[in-house]
Amino acid sequence: MDFAYDAVTSSFRDRLLEFMESHVYPAEPVFHAQLLSAADRWSVPPVVEELKAEARRRGLWNLFLPGEHGAGLTNLQYAPLAEIMGRSPNLGPAATNCAAPDTGNMEVLAEFGTEAQRKEWLEPLLEGRIRSAFAMTEPDVASSDATNIGTLITRDGDDYVINGRKWYISGAMNPNCKIFIVMGKTDPDGPRHQQQSQILVPRDTPGMTIKRGMHVFGYDDADHGGHAEILFENCRVPAENLISTPGSGFAISQARLGPGRIHHCMRLIGMAERAVELMCRRSLVRTPFGKPLAEQGVVQEWIAESRVRIEQLRLLVLKTAWLMDTVGNRGAHTEIQAIKIATPETVQWIIDKAIQAHGAAGVSQDTPLAELWAKARSLRLADGPDEVHKRSLARRELKRYA
Amino acid sequence: MDFAYDAVTSSFRDRLLEFMESHVYPAEPVFHAQLLSAADRWSVPPVVEELKAEARRRGLWNLFLPGEHGAGLTNLQYAPLAEIMGRSPNLGPAATNCAAPDTGNMEVLAEFGTEAQRKEWLEPLLEGRIRSAFAMTEPDVASSDATNIGTLITRDGDDYVINGRKWYISGAMNPNCKIFIVMGKTDPDGPRHQQQSQILVPRDTPGMTIKRGMHVFGYDDADHGGHAEILFENCRVPAENLISTPGSGFAISQARLGPGRIHHCMRLIGMAERAVELMCRRSLVRTPFGKPLAEQGVVQEWIAESRVRIEQLRLLVLKTAWLMDTVGNRGAHTEIQAIKIATPETVQWIIDKAIQAHGAAGVSQDTPLAELWAKARSLRLADGPDEVHKRSLARRELKRYA
Amino acid sequence: MDFAYDAVTSSFRDRLLEFMESHVYPAEPVFHAQLLSAADRWSVPPVVEELKAEARRRGLWNLFLPGEHGAGLTNLQYAPLAEIMGRSPNLGPAATNCAAPDTGNMEVLAEFGTEAQRKEWLEPLLEGRIRSAFAMTEPDVASSDATNIGTLITRDGDDYVINGRKWYISGAMNPNCKIFIVMGKTDPDGPRHQQQSQILVPRDTPGMTIKRGMHVFGYDDADHGGHAEILFENCRVPAENLISTPGSGFAISQARLGPGRIHHCMRLIGMAERAVELMCRRSLVRTPFGKPLAEQGVVQEWIAESRVRIEQLRLLVLKTAWLMDTVGNRGAHTEIQAIKIATPETVQWIIDKAIQAHGAAGVSQDTPLAELWAKARSLRLADGPDEVHKRSLARRELKRYA
Amino acid sequence: MDFAYDAVTSSFRDRLLEFMESHVYPAEPVFHAQLLSAADRWSVPPVVEELKAEARRRGLWNLFLPGEHGAGLTNLQYAPLAEIMGRSPNLGPAATNCAAPDTGNMEVLAEFGTEAQRKEWLEPLLEGRIRSAFAMTEPDVASSDATNIGTLITRDGDDYVINGRKWYISGAMNPNCKIFIVMGKTDPDGPRHQQQSQILVPRDTPGMTIKRGMHVFGYDDADHGGHAEILFENCRVPAENLISTPGSGFAISQARLGPGRIHHCMRLIGMAERAVELMCRRSLVRTPFGKPLAEQGVVQEWIAESRVRIEQLRLLVLKTAWLMDTVGNRGAHTEIQAIKIATPETVQWIIDKAIQAHGAAGVSQDTPLAELWAKARSLRLADGPDEVHKRSLARRELKRYA
Repeated sequence: MDFAYDAVTSSFRDRLLEFMESHVYPAEPVFHAQLLSAADRWSVPPVVEELKAEARRRGLWNLFLPGEHGAGLTNLQYAPLAEIMGRSPNLGPAATNCAAPDTGNMEVLAEFGTEAQRKEWLEPLLEGRIRSAFAMTEPDVASSDATNIGTLITRDGDDYVINGRKWYISGAMNPNCKIFIVMGKTDPDGPRHQQQSQILVPRDTPGMTIKRGMHVFGYDDADHGGHAEILFENCRVPAENLISTPGSGFAISQARLGPGRIHHCMRLIGMAERAVELMCRRSLVRTPFGKPLAEQGVVQEWIAESRVRIEQLRLLVLKTAWLMDTVGNRGAHTEIQAIKIATPETVQWIIDKAIQAHGAAGVSQDTPLAELWAKARSLRLADGPDEVHKRSLARRELKRYA
Repeated sequence: MDFAYDAVTSSFRDRLLEFMESHVYPAEPVFHAQLLSAADRWSVPPVVEELKAEARRRGLWNLFLPGEHGAGLTNLQYAPLAEIMGRSPNLGPAATNCAAPDTGNMEVLAEFGTEAQRKEWLEPLLEGRIRSAFAMTEPDVASSDATNIGTLITRDGDDYVINGRKWYISGAMNPNCKIFIVMGKTDPDGPRHQQQSQILVPRDTPGMTIKRGMHVFGYDDADHGGHAEILFENCRVPAENLISTPGSGFAISQARLGPGRIHHCMRLIGMAERAVELMCRRSLVRTPFGKPLAEQGVVQEWIAESRVRIEQLRLLVLKTAWLMDTVGNRGAHTEIQAIKIATPETVQWIIDKAIQAHGAAGVSQDTPLAELWAKARSLRLADGPDEVHKRSLARRELKRYA
Repeated sequence: MDFAYDAVTSSFRDRLLEFMESHVYPAEPVFHAQLLSAADRWSVPPVVEELKAEARRRGLWNLFLPGEHGAGLTNLQYAPLAEIMGRSPNLGPAATNCAAPDTGNMEVLAEFGTEAQRKEWLEPLLEGRIRSAFAMTEPDVASSDATNIGTLITRDGDDYVINGRKWYISGAMNPNCKIFIVMGKTDPDGPRHQQQSQILVPRDTPGMTIKRGMHVFGYDDADHGGHAEILFENCRVPAENLISTPGSGFAISQARLGPGRIHHCMRLIGMAERAVELMCRRSLVRTPFGKPLAEQGVVQEWIAESRVRIEQLRLLVLKTAWLMDTVGNRGAHTEIQAIKIATPETVQWIIDKAIQAHGAAGVSQDTPLAELWAKARSLRLADGPDEVHKRSLARRELKRYA
Repeated sequence: MDFAYDAVTSSFRDRLLEFMESHVYPAEPVFHAQLLSAADRWSVPPVVEELKAEARRRGLWNLFLPGEHGAGLTNLQYAPLAEIMGRSPNLGPAATNCAAPDTGNMEVLAEFGTEAQRKEWLEPLLEGRIRSAFAMTEPDVASSDATNIGTLITRDGDDYVINGRKWYISGAMNPNCKIFIVMGKTDPDGPRHQQQSQILVPRDTPGMTIKRGMHVFGYDDADHGGHAEILFENCRVPAENLISTPGSGFAISQARLGPGRIHHCMRLIGMAERAVELMCRRSLVRTPFGKPLAEQGVVQEWIAESRVRIEQLRLLVLKTAWLMDTVGNRGAHTEIQAIKIATPETVQWIIDKAIQAHGAAGVSQDTPLAELWAKARSLRLADGPDEVHKRSLARRELKRYA
């Protein structure tokens, strides 16, 4: 047992920390100013492209991707880097081409795509020239269980025809989001876990209509393409757009879940660290009753609790990454659920305290806190509500004694 | 001791409940559609004026205002009505001319205004022809303690000249908000509680610049005039615009606090009731694992806890109203603090659970829950953060044994 | 709606408060000293009899009992008195002959007993000459649902024969506990709520064996007769010992539940008030870091939260008492469940904070806090665990929308 | 970074787990029966000696002690073993001669004792022939800060004379507790951290009076020597009984704190694991409403939360042990505080849930849960209340930004 980062991780951490300090944090106010003055609400502020160029130049690119196509890091090596990116969640991941849902989509294409699919979509994604979306969640069913998905993908000659309604499809409003991986049923009467397939749908395919941007506590998240409600009405794509074989959709979605959650959780921890830093800095300078907030017992309690909880969370996420590397995603299933249960809720609590220490500024657009909070809160629902994961984890625990 | 509503209250409750069912709830989707399609983001949707006309016709008008100018109800009689209005917080209070901050402003003008001030501003406010704002909070100081306010109101011949910066001035972006009550210091070197004055500043007075709308977790609350940041630079108004005498500003602000908090808390309880109703209705129809959410133990726990907490909160707020009626705002000081501490936090908790029961819909614009949550959360900071009130209440408790 | 105590209540409160100050609190150290030096661990310290004589002389006697046999108070009038007694839970209720389970037993005998039963058992109980027990809970079943009870009460000629095992039968180890009301099934095959009966079993009836005293977190509660495990093996009593008619046991047990819970909850609130007082007093004199605990923000937070929660709880319990008086126990069912859910948990939280403020002394025998805590904690289980009540209350809430 | 146990740890774990199954758990009922029937309440049940003999035979002896005198394990290697012992906290540590406060006392003697002191006291302690106590905490001061200690150790010729009052001196009532390490001031006017010394006081030294056993929520913990209040009145011991040099007491006490807390925390985690196991087993067989508790959502929530929290806690404690091994106790200071803050509170929460799942049995003497709870709760105060550690940790965090 050893709690030190290995040399590769340490080196990447140093370089990434330096990049955050020198480029990413300074770009935050620029980013917000560009957003406010943008002609097209859904376009990405130009500063993001500048950051991407710089990150790529520095070799801080596609760090999330194992194997030949990416940086070749393990989950355990990448996790501490995702945390650092998460400190500036609108810029850090995007600058390094490590932003969801592109990450998962690239993984899927790298692992399951045909050569043609990889050439057409993976390549520009790896180069950061386009963005992508993953269309799974539906408003009408509890989508955390992928077997509930109702969208139909029906074979018709050399094509597949898609019908269904999706929502909260992140990134889809971004005009540069060129490709959608759509999950649906090719065989609704087949065995429960073999009914689903994933299929590639290029933007502007007739029959696919982006209806509106969904909100998250007042935020439309326009800066990274929002969260679209999308209607598929007889949307037709060639049969070769199917990823892997018909019926493999559920298995593919499982494969992307583990890394996706690790990434989310590590970024959340970075967000928590950002919140603690802001809480400390504010507490040191604000003196509501003649002495700094930093000397008030209640604020000290918040800071201490935040630190203690973050340390525990990080270790659990790192151990989970290590398990995924050593025994595989399946072997790490319980731990993946555990971090999904623990991280958003804990981080939400920490950010709430940081907000409270800021007074009205905390809920405003003048600090990142309110937006960070909304991100953390929504992750208690995304990929399945906490309660679903708790139920599943408890059943596994109970089985040990049954 | 008697826990039954009196006849006047019961009668008003019945009439108000009927009005909510027949007019207010049906107007909600209209209101949101009009907001989305409005040319001017900050204008009020026309349906609000229709509701106002109907409420006035029904005698459901100015219910908050005791004495000759209003409905003449006691705090205890009004409180259950404010709760009902709060179930639809964007429409209920506005429809009945009982919306903050007009309510407090009308109280101040009715009690402290000169005949000329009342004629010019109270009258149109009572008739619902204009709206108003109360400009107290400042970004640079802990404004919960009014003695910290830094804005200067300096006598200059027959005028007063105002300099300072305010923010989170609710309602100010609404073009129909015609009058601002501004709090500042006329005597910065006087005794601590006699430095402040309140003064009337009409919209469009030169020197007063509305800089921007502040956000609350992504919401700009444009539907009721937002929350403005306002800059006063040598803003000049006639000396007769001062309310009451110079140095009376702190006392006046204290007078408006008690009723204001009762109103806020009762509306919050109405919001909590709305959330519980939505949680129950959703739980009865959503069946994520083959049986309704309503039969899941965890959801039952949320519903039961919500009910138990609401019942306790309501009684404490009602008792506080009764105390204000019987021993005055000063005598009810501890209870007013207690409801300010307990209500926003508890209601926030309840709404959070209702959100969780809704999945992604809960954080979206498709239910009122996310917006209700943001309102409740921000009230843990507005009028002073919880911690300030806890500190003060604890000290009073400790004095009993010192 | 009126939150003032009526004249009768106020007068009794004043007299009871005076009695507590002049006699009960001063008797606490005497009581503990007598307990430590007692020859028989299960006998009651003599100071209790002295307090009883004094309380009776002052007319502070049987206050809990409505109707001719007792003081004739309503639930709403008695509740604030039970709170005051609860401040010294080992002495206050016992001194005034208002201690559980005698209270419930006297209610049952007064309402359902035959003249002979009342003469033999109610009379000496009313006079405080003997104590009693109520034997319902069983180790082998979830006894919160009385229909689960497994003990058999079988008719055999002119007798009933009892077989079964009970535990946590409070007061039973006290040698002066002369009569047991035992709950069991006379008709195990009858309709579900008519299988049960209650029957009187005098101490020392052959076949009834008191096996041992059960503990509550290390406490055996010897001062008031402990909590016995009792074995009934062919325990035979005359048929006229049955209370009311065969099959009425469930209905009788329901009748005693409402008042019993009100009493428990009000005493708990008194315990919470005691804890807050101790926390405040300690905080004012203990100066761990050069300034009193009372000036530490965290302790102030505890005190404020405690006050705010107590005020809410008390109002809900009082309203429930009022409902029982005005619409009956059945009409107050939801509220009775609500106070059962809210009170023990909240009071436990408050006492925990008071303990924390006392350091090691808080968990010791040198303050009443640890023992108060154990009482509050065990009431989250007694009369059914919180979760059972939450489930039931939630279902009722859901029915409003089904 | 590597989360696997090393070979030494794995081997010891296997052997210890086997010993627990084959000998320790089966001894628990014997232990309790012997306690109940013991003539001397404070003597140790004979089964403990049998377990010690067996453990020693198996080489499971003095595992806690690094270096030549003990098993030579690192903190990181020992921690998982302490967790296993903690599953049976009355027997596991005692059986393996790894019970507090002997562990700390042996460490102190091994590191700071003279050869004579080691021969006289360390040797029999290492062999498990005697027990020992550490007399630091005082009723009159906040003892978590050792500089507050008021007991005086005054040089008088060739002796030291001790005067003061101690309490909660664990193990002291055990007649086999032969030696006390007493902390006090030899130089009350010296520099703040050089006033204290530690000195050896053999049992039965004149002037040392054991006054009484202190309670912890009703428990006197007689099975391992209780928690004594001790009065020192002109208690005289030879000067050579002083440990190390005069003024070194504070430094020595700091040296023992780190390992002591690691041990406490790991044992607590073992207690939590025991509680979860009991909760699961109970939930699988108890069927209060026609289906097992294990299928109730609320119980599943408890089990899942418990698992998620334990996993996080364990990792933080292990990392802390690793830090102590790699950068020393000083370098691990923040983490040691963090585990002290997090562990008792979290474990207390878990045990509380297990209690709730057991109903009345949970608070009784029939499961270990109530006693485990009391141990966990008291550790939120022992070695300083949580709040002290939070304050200190927060200040360190704030310094990063000051």
